[in-house]
Amino acid sequence: MLSVDEALERLLAGGLGMTEAETVLLTDAVGRVPAVRRLVAAHDVPPFANSAMDGFAMLSADGDAPRRMLGESRAGGPGAPRVERGTAVRIMTGAPLPPGADAVVPLEKAREEENTVLVEAAPALGAHVRAAGHDVPAGTSVVLADAPLSAASIGLLAALGRDSIEVHRRPRVAILSTGDELRPAGATLGAGQIHDANGPALAAAVSESGAEPILLDAAPDDPTVIEERIRDGARGADLLIVSGGVSVGRHDLVRTVIERLGSLEFWRIAVQPGKPLAFGYIGERPVVGLPGNPVSALVTFELFVRPMIRRMMGLSGDGRTRVRARVDEALGKDVARRAYLRVSAAAEGDGYRAVSAGGQASSQLLTLASANALLVVPEGLASTEAGGTYEAILLGPVA
Amino acid sequence: MLSVDEALERLLAGGLGMTEAETVLLTDAVGRVPAVRRLVAAHDVPPFANSAMDGFAMLSADGDAPRRMLGESRAGGPGAPRVERGTAVRIMTGAPLPPGADAVVPLEKAREEENTVLVEAAPALGAHVRAAGHDVPAGTSVVLADAPLSAASIGLLAALGRDSIEVHRRPRVAILSTGDELRPAGATLGAGQIHDANGPALAAAVSESGAEPILLDAAPDDPTVIEERIRDGARGADLLIVSGGVSVGRHDLVRTVIERLGSLEFWRIAVQPGKPLAFGYIGERPVVGLPGNPVSALVTFELFVRPMIRRMMGLSGDGRTRVRARVDEALGKDVARRAYLRVSAAAEGDGYRAVSAGGQASSQLLTLASANALLVVPEGLASTEAGGTYEAILLGPVA
Repeated sequence: MLSVDEALERLLAGGLGMTEAETVLLTDAVGRVPAVRRLVAAHDVPPFANSAMDGFAMLSADGDAPRRMLGESRAGGPGAPRVERGTAVRIMTGAPLPPGADAVVPLEKAREEENTVLVEAAPALGAHVRAAGHDVPAGTSVVLADAPLSAASIGLLAALGRDSIEVHRRPRVAILSTGDELRPAGATLGAGQIHDANGPALAAAVSESGAEPILLDAAPDDPTVIEERIRDGARGADLLIVSGGVSVGRHDLVRTVIERLGSLEFWRIAVQPGKPLAFGYIGERPVVGLPGNPVSALVTFELFVRPMIRRMMGLSGDGRTRVRARVDEALGKDVARRAYLRVSAAAEGDGYRAVSAGGQASSQLLTLASANALLVVPEGLASTEAGGTYEAILLGPVA
Repeated sequence: MLSVDEALERLLAGGLGMTEAETVLLTDAVGRVPAVRRLVAAHDVPPFANSAMDGFAMLSADGDAPRRMLGESRAGGPGAPRVERGTAVRIMTGAPLPPGADAVVPLEKAREEENTVLVEAAPALGAHVRAAGHDVPAGTSVVLADAPLSAASIGLLAALGRDSIEVHRRPRVAILSTGDELRPAGATLGAGQIHDANGPALAAAVSESGAEPILLDAAPDDPTVIEERIRDGARGADLLIVSGGVSVGRHDLVRTVIERLGSLEFWRIAVQPGKPLAFGYIGERPVVGLPGNPVSALVTFELFVRPMIRRMMGLSGDGRTRVRARVDEALGKDVARRAYLRVSAAAEGDGYRAVSAGGQASSQLLTLASANALLVVPEGLASTEAGGTYEAILLGPVA
């Protein structure tokens, strides 16, 4: 059996191409991944020295002496008069510091009487003045985070004068469920039939990873139809996921089809749930075969396919937050495999505590839907130790 | 000054309407918020007893005696023959347990010779059999998490036979920036002008919150234009956000317009960055006035508007993960206000460590774009204590 880490390394080493760059408007860019992370500021941000407060712009050298009022400086207003010794200009937050001025006294610390400004105390040089470029000086190399664009990054790009940005195209990921027993969601079931949960679930997982799912119609256990679906799917996709067909019963069917079109290796991975995984290529397109059980399919997607998709957009890792969580139960597992147990994690004191979300069989999807984290219990252990702490991978926000 | 908690309580108490339900296909439902969280399972999941392994279905009561092979049970295949004493049926993973059988012996523990199955040991009653309904029994009340729909929840809904689900319509949030100095992203700047960062940044923050942004053209400091924009914005929106116009300089302008159309209160909140906030109504539509500084606008959005938007979809809280993070620096703050300092948080040992992302002035957007968390430092403290731990609100995944 391959370890989880070895399997992931092989998947990522396998010549995954990055998607090309495309230009999107800033207003469509949230959550997208920048294709170029380093930008040079073309101008100062802010472009001019301005006031941090509503108040009066003046010269610090005049100390606490009264100043004669010359006029005002409003944000976006006409240029303010030059401030010289013994004078002041009324100024609004964000408005340009008038030429000559080197300090601002806030409204609360000053008083206007007829045409004169009286200050409580002498202002310090530069008081309440934001220098030009004090956020980002022109020529600065701004490096965007190794992450999808946040609201703040989009604001920063706007402040830098950008209205669009080059991002990696979302990888297109085709998804194929296989099995004679499968009926589409919503259809009436006949004897021996089940609803295809993997198709919609994997399509959702692909979207959550930042890629674009292409959900193919499920294929029966018929090599002609499987081949047709895989050819169609591979044509428009950067990556193809097939679920089912990695267990012994169907192994040969999917293997035969993919080997006719490209290449496929079957791996056994020391992971619970999961274990069987297939990896290959059709032309240059990677193909991953996931187990047919929805829980195994989603957990192996999380561990292996999500990092592949992120890599295709230039991101590292799986983009999940990890915490250490205490467990108060002995949760059994296969000693030979690394287990990813479905748990509910919640903050407790200065740390986190995890409680089993229920049945851990690979056919129990309800408990994965109820869980908010996967608890990682290493190879070599037959169960968690009550009171022990383990790594928990948070699948979403945790209260 | 209002505390952050008091302000939030008032905002949420203010009769926020929930958006109505709309039906979406399961394939469009990821990240949407279910309008009805409790569902009753209409049928067993799985609908029939089936095999957890590839192997042989038989009667446990036959012990370790050889069995005569009757045929096979394939997933989605024709009904398998009835298993009676002394007989067995070949079975694939997921295939229906043949009538009469009560145990499965996996391939690895059995051997087929001519028409006979030999087992290594007597199977236990129910071995490797998944009972009908062992994931979700018919009639079970399934409660979906108080969270946007995950991939696993979508898989579960599919397995329950659903192909669509009622979700809350995304709230429509209109966004208006005000200020004579503002130019749209990408435009060339004249003297005294800056790019409007708040519009694109708040639109992105609205999207991240699960709502639909309506970005209005920025309004100059002209009451007629502000009124026109606000009227247009309020018409199609569930919530209106105005940024700028809450500082003293512009206060009267925005106040006058909104009071003509509805009502508006100006609050001072013990928060850093932030402080001024306005809240009111135009008809039944809530209006929030955020500070003009991009950092203050985004942080007050995070603290106040994000929970409002979530409440409008029936979600509680802000949907952010919090960790305790150690700080090794004394980071200064205003003693009277609760500070939300921009930090980079990273796992360290069993916990988290936070490092300042840089300048904490409300006009420094670069450091908010570089931060992945807000460190909460309470009222009453003038700085963090080196070596102390504080709550950190994670703004996204943290490595």
